[in-house]
Amino acid sequence: MLTRREAAAGLAATALAMSVRGTAQAQEAEAAARSLPPPRATGGMPLIDALKLRRSTRAYSTRPLEPQVLSDLLWAADGVNRPSGDRTAPYWRHIMVIDIYAAMADGVWLYDPKAQALLLRQKDDLRALSGTQDFVGAAPLNLIYVAHGERMTDVGPEERRLFASADACFIGQNVYLFCASEGLATVFRGSANQAKLGAAMNLPEGQFVTFAQTVGYPA
Amino acid sequence: MLTRREAAAGLAATALAMSVRGTAQAQEAEAAARSLPPPRATGGMPLIDALKLRRSTRAYSTRPLEPQVLSDLLWAADGVNRPSGDRTAPYWRHIMVIDIYAAMADGVWLYDPKAQALLLRQKDDLRALSGTQDFVGAAPLNLIYVAHGERMTDVGPEERRLFASADACFIGQNVYLFCASEGLATVFRGSANQAKLGAAMNLPEGQFVTFAQTVGYPA
Repeated sequence: MLTRREAAAGLAATALAMSVRGTAQAQEAEAAARSLPPPRATGGMPLIDALKLRRSTRAYSTRPLEPQVLSDLLWAADGVNRPSGDRTAPYWRHIMVIDIYAAMADGVWLYDPKAQALLLRQKDDLRALSGTQDFVGAAPLNLIYVAHGERMTDVGPEERRLFASADACFIGQNVYLFCASEGLATVFRGSANQAKLGAAMNLPEGQFVTFAQTVGYPA
Repeated sequence: MLTRREAAAGLAATALAMSVRGTAQAQEAEAAARSLPPPRATGGMPLIDALKLRRSTRAYSTRPLEPQVLSDLLWAADGVNRPSGDRTAPYWRHIMVIDIYAAMADGVWLYDPKAQALLLRQKDDLRALSGTQDFVGAAPLNLIYVAHGERMTDVGPEERRLFASADACFIGQNVYLFCASEGLATVFRGSANQAKLGAAMNLPEGQFVTFAQTVGYPA
């Protein structure tokens, strides 16, 4: 049975949803969420074999990634791996600070690990802006690791950058091993113009780009 | 057939070895290198399954790691994975800056990935000094990721710390996945007193501790 507070909250939420549902914004918001197929629950190459094939690649085919591959990749990178909500990668002092953005030909999408979905953030193709080398713009996917600096309240800017970068690297190594296991090419990159990229992404105050990582099929 | 230069170099090396072999220092140096069994060439858990079990653990048994497990672990962490000499983890701008030290009950050992061996650096048990929590001193192994800042010649101190820390995190995630695959416990830690630990390790000028990572069997 609902308490009075829950019932009131439920009514308010329903009213809000109804008022919003008719607007163009709501329609756009619905169109802007792309659910991913459930990630594979098992499989891949034996770990030692994947470690043997771990490498950086700088030549890519323009072939897009299939939805299942994209879903598995994002889950491997930083997906929810247990009921606590914890992830495949560790994170700084129990505060999750890294968001993964997927920059693809059709726009920039935010990975939502809880819903296993991609949320459209902008329709611009920012791939080329995510790095300085030619292959970056041609590859089908660039992951951009964005830090919520504003969540790291008890340390200064240098420490924020350091610990957020550390968290992005744990994720990056997951991506390396997933790509090794699946025959994909990848390279983790620190050479982007992070400030320019962050501005093009309209990141809110306090958020910043740490690193980026190109993923695709080998050329 | 040897060229004259090779023959001369060979003779010089033999003479040097003979003159050194008799000394106490040479005996100590030989005793101070512990070769590890060759790392496993294949196997481990399927990658997706290892990712599912990836987690941080803060309770350890005191049981030591068997030599084969230690060898496999260090290879997985940052071993040589191809003829180019490249590693299981990526590294900054083609310059290898991270050394892995293994702090165990019998001393602090430097991992030599080319020889797949451990080189004794000091006989002190520095495990407890590698972190601030009680489990750190009880676990059989703490990996200490030391950066050669002096090799990063074209960037300032803040960038050195950032990029060296990044490289340590790639290695750390390899360790996480290896431990998940092998039923070992591990936690990557940023909470050590890095300056104090570096001083106790007598690190040369320019080198510094980035992070540490505890490994052992779960309690």
